Amino acid sequence: MIWNSGWRLASAVSNAGGLGIIGSGSMYPNVLLEHVRKCKAATNKPFAVNIPMLYPAVEEHVATVIAERVPIVFTSAGNPATWTAKLKDAGITVVHVTASVKFALKAEKAGVDAVVAEGFEAGGHNGREETTTLVLVPLVRDAVQVPVIAAGGIADGRAMLAAMALGADGVQMGSRFACSVESSAHPAFKQHVVESREGDTLLTLKELAPVRLMRNKFFDEVQAAYARCATPEELKQVLGRARAKRGMFEGDLEEGELEIGQVAAGIREVLPAAVIVEQVMKEFEGEQRRIAAMGTAW
Amino acid sequence: MIWNSGWRLASAVSNAGGLGIIGSGSMYPNVLLEHVRKCKAATNKPFAVNIPMLYPAVEEHVATVIAERVPIVFTSAGNPATWTAKLKDAGITVVHVTASVKFALKAEKAGVDAVVAEGFEAGGHNGREETTTLVLVPLVRDAVQVPVIAAGGIADGRAMLAAMALGADGVQMGSRFACSVESSAHPAFKQHVVESREGDTLLTLKELAPVRLMRNKFFDEVQAAYARCATPEELKQVLGRARAKRGMFEGDLEEGELEIGQVAAGIREVLPAAVIVEQVMKEFEGEQRRIAAMGTAW
Repeated sequence: MIWNSGWRLASAVSNAGGLGIIGSGSMYPNVLLEHVRKCKAATNKPFAVNIPMLYPAVEEHVATVIAERVPIVFTSAGNPATWTAKLKDAGITVVHVTASVKFALKAEKAGVDAVVAEGFEAGGHNGREETTTLVLVPLVRDAVQVPVIAAGGIADGRAMLAAMALGADGVQMGSRFACSVESSAHPAFKQHVVESREGDTLLTLKELAPVRLMRNKFFDEVQAAYARCATPEELKQVLGRARAKRGMFEGDLEEGELEIGQVAAGIREVLPAAVIVEQVMKEFEGEQRRIAAMGTAW
Repeated sequence: MIWNSGWRLASAVSNAGGLGIIGSGSMYPNVLLEHVRKCKAATNKPFAVNIPMLYPAVEEHVATVIAERVPIVFTSAGNPATWTAKLKDAGITVVHVTASVKFALKAEKAGVDAVVAEGFEAGGHNGREETTTLVLVPLVRDAVQVPVIAAGGIADGRAMLAAMALGADGVQMGSRFACSVESSAHPAFKQHVVESREGDTLLTLKELAPVRLMRNKFFDEVQAAYARCATPEELKQVLGRARAKRGMFEGDLEEGELEIGQVAAGIREVLPAAVIVEQVMKEFEGEQRRIAAMGTAW
């Protein structure tokens, strides 16, 4: 959710009854501090900060969330053992994002309060095993004792109920909120996501750090580099710098990196976060009643 | 389900209350005829034959199912327009296996009675869009009027209920039955699947015909060919012939092609098909009650 989820989106989701998450991956330390303070001013409800450990400024971000008494931190893209104890010692609830049973167990051992089990269909950075949400959630559910939050491929109440049926205690939704009014993403990016169809995202850069992107000129250049068996160095050259900002924040749909989940194909309009939360919960309850009324199939 | 689902498995599933499917892809015409006749002798319940259109003998197989009055045919891996009318004219119920909305609509237009929406996590041949079951099923559900059968990643009652929550009218399970007592697969293959873990299967051969395989020596050779940018011709050389038979039917776990779904990681024992059907339905009903009792989360 880098370049998408700042204080506006996080506070809007929290005010609507969800748990809003500030995505700190794209932020300099002073920027995160500003977002956390604005988020606190905009909501009295709990909110969280996601700290992806592959970006710089992790240490500063950890210091910020502790100093600002952020109630919940989602760590991701790194070793859960590195920061969990320090965050827990500061009284913070820690959730670690994982894409495999192996890392879910590692996170549990590190003392996290919950894990996110995020499947192959998720946007942005992704696991190497390519395990989908449908397969991953029950595996993680059966392996750990802590609560499991399902992520990847979830953008409506049907998928939320499906995730609960698989054993999840809650769900995390990224792509749907990337297309909310309050998302910091460029309007052109949001519109592009809304118009996208199945097959428009693919997982790439598997040798460096697997990431799910929308197909565009930049994506094609990456694929062409693979086709000619480019070295990792050449690949990094193709990648260049600040592609994610260029694509998602500045709205350059051709040269930018457009991170979004497969479920983009099912997202049809840009709505306020509160409306999304309400729609999802209504669909969830409707499906719940339908499932209950199905009777025994047997 | 080639080399896995013959008359023994199909009749066992049908007798247990499911719809057993004979996989004809690996069969010569006379072999399919024998399996259909034995299946009829072994069950009074409806059963089906799957005809993947990418194998030879499609025309003979179509003639066989018509002559033998097989009640239901699942077509796959080809254009649904080619055989649907002929099969329907013979009074056969036709289901087409698809991996995208585009092909689901094409199948509906061709007059099929139902579609299978099969996600990226499925074993064996697979779609090019890599859309997962969680994302695909609601997209197909919203696009077509005919019943939708979810496939890929479904091996227990939890996943079955999840698929129903996504809008599916039924589910198709392959990998779980590949590991049944009645599956024709070699015991060594079944045991290997039971012992496998997440990440042990990957989708490969994307340029030829995408297929999900277990990692083994043969798989590594394919990946090495990709790493050196082998031509399609060289790739075909590496593939050789009869790899699927060698792996799944003859139990050569190193040199053979081992087709199975991601959900293999969650399959823990080889059981009779009837026990599998009963377990799945019990889990399904248990989950259904749990979901109904959840109350409103809102």
